[in-house]
Amino acid sequence: MKRKITLKQIARELDVSISTVSKALSGSKEISEDTTQKIQAFAKLYNYRPNNIALSLKNRKTKTIGILIPEIVHHFFSTVIRGIELVANKRGYNVIVGLSNESFTKEIINMEMLANGSIDGFILSISKETLLKQDYHHFNATINQGMPIVMFDRVVNEIKCDKVIVDDYKGSIKAVNMLIEKGSKNIALITTMDYVSVGKLRTQGYLEALEASKIVPDSNLILKIDDSLVDEDLEDLENEIEQFFKSNNKIDGVFAVNELYAVTAMKVARKLGLSIPDDIQVIGFTDGVLSKHATPSLTTVSQHGQKIGEQSADLLIDRLELEEDESLDYTDENERNENFKTIIIETEIIERESTK
Amino acid sequence: MKRKITLKQIARELDVSISTVSKALSGSKEISEDTTQKIQAFAKLYNYRPNNIALSLKNRKTKTIGILIPEIVHHFFSTVIRGIELVANKRGYNVIVGLSNESFTKEIINMEMLANGSIDGFILSISKETLLKQDYHHFNATINQGMPIVMFDRVVNEIKCDKVIVDDYKGSIKAVNMLIEKGSKNIALITTMDYVSVGKLRTQGYLEALEASKIVPDSNLILKIDDSLVDEDLEDLENEIEQFFKSNNKIDGVFAVNELYAVTAMKVARKLGLSIPDDIQVIGFTDGVLSKHATPSLTTVSQHGQKIGEQSADLLIDRLELEEDESLDYTDENERNENFKTIIIETEIIERESTK
Repeated sequence: MKRKITLKQIARELDVSISTVSKALSGSKEISEDTTQKIQAFAKLYNYRPNNIALSLKNRKTKTIGILIPEIVHHFFSTVIRGIELVANKRGYNVIVGLSNESFTKEIINMEMLANGSIDGFILSISKETLLKQDYHHFNATINQGMPIVMFDRVVNEIKCDKVIVDDYKGSIKAVNMLIEKGSKNIALITTMDYVSVGKLRTQGYLEALEASKIVPDSNLILKIDDSLVDEDLEDLENEIEQFFKSNNKIDGVFAVNELYAVTAMKVARKLGLSIPDDIQVIGFTDGVLSKHATPSLTTVSQHGQKIGEQSADLLIDRLELEEDESLDYTDENERNENFKTIIIETEIIERESTK
Repeated sequence: MKRKITLKQIARELDVSISTVSKALSGSKEISEDTTQKIQAFAKLYNYRPNNIALSLKNRKTKTIGILIPEIVHHFFSTVIRGIELVANKRGYNVIVGLSNESFTKEIINMEMLANGSIDGFILSISKETLLKQDYHHFNATINQGMPIVMFDRVVNEIKCDKVIVDDYKGSIKAVNMLIEKGSKNIALITTMDYVSVGKLRTQGYLEALEASKIVPDSNLILKIDDSLVDEDLEDLENEIEQFFKSNNKIDGVFAVNELYAVTAMKVARKLGLSIPDDIQVIGFTDGVLSKHATPSLTTVSQHGQKIGEQSADLLIDRLELEEDESLDYTDENERNENFKTIIIETEIIERESTK
């Protein structure tokens, strides 16, 4: 077997970044013509073929789905994988999981590795760094080479592919409306930085719900957490929320965009002598083990991770089997694109003890 | 590219099980000579080569580690993966994850898929079904073909490879001793069925600790949970533990072999009006998010999942790089085997609010 060269090796040899190599090979205009020529010539010399994906696709089916997720220690992603597995097994497919660790470069390396003959298509959620850079050339290159992608949860409009998303926006509105209906007057939001698309949508839902009830949003009541500063022990997170509560002592309701923030907020509230839900009501997003087992148990907006996984797998396998039938001969690019679907999974509020 | 035939396809064509095909190809004596000949002839005809692992190993390095775990929605396995990733990234390796879903057949299929040129070696934990069947031919076949395996947590003596294990036995003794020292007289054990090796070792530790303190073990105080009967809502688990507590009302200490059982036991105890730790003390095994966030927070035996992952990755990469140096030319099989290491990760008790 001839030794295959990888993006990483090309990058090292030519002393450029992996992303530059990846872009040059996909013909991106961001890279200078000179560099592009050099990289393409080198890749050709060492037999690197960015389009061997399409070649392998035409000749064999691996019956394997590649899943690419940002992190593994995360209940939501775990339940999505369980959903994908359920449908994949039922329909005769296997799954294999790659991890980007929220890194742009690792996302590219993993896609190259998996796309190189191991899998028939991708189900993925975009890494934070990629969202921050807004650089999606690797997804487009993969799709253009004939390998289908289904994106879930963290998706972007710029990429034309099947998508499965949660109605983050409506879910937040439901949550904040419930807090208002149950008597909270000063509702705080604990959220992520804006570049995380789901955090942003949930923040918009919060603002929208307040305005619809004629409540003027108060920027002091919004706490944006920088996840990269949260350590394993969660002490920083606790301290940050404690300071936030102390400097806004009128807060009587909290909407948190994930369950870790929500459970930590409850812990801090108890520490400050507040009774839940009488003094302060709390609603989280994502229904994981923490929500169920917290004391008091947490009212949450459930994202139905397993359903997201199931729908994603069905979308991908439908497309793979359709392409098989039609021999993948689309002459009109637009004709193919028109068929892309976006499935929105409705959220649902699960009422527990942290609300009245 | 020539279409490669898989174990699954051979099994379907010849109307035998995947495990039969796998065994016949690895020359197992369990399969009749007739069947073995038929399967080997068919595999040869369709160009299936069980030993192309070794071929690919000699010719190229993928710099990728294949991880094979029983389930994904499990904090312990997630933290092990994080540990593997940390070391792998540092040493220039990528990781890819396959899931057996506790199934023997899926374990074989995943190993075949990953070993087929995608990875340099495996880090894995054995599925429950495989442990129940005690059929390890696929591991031995992989090792004999020259692909190294490191096993962690759920390991068996029969397989000669590097291993990383937790001192489950000693960890349990520590936990039960702590309950005794802190005044519990009637200590219950909530454990899994015996075929799960770690459950069995933890049960042995419990019995040993009682006997060392001259306490006669009472079989009524041992509850063995059949995981396959535990539904998603955990209602069955709760009911089972409630019945157990009701029929043994003298219980004043509980040692549970995982944190889910421990947290559920605390929930049931509260429901029955017992105060923790005054009426009943609880210690769990595995230090995950539930333990930290439970109310009261749970005293646990920490398994150090991340450390297990780190050590496993170091063992595997050391072996891969050693083999590279030595060109994998062991003339004496025993010489190679003698070098296998078993690393035991010490457990540690993390004291929190569920003990006095």
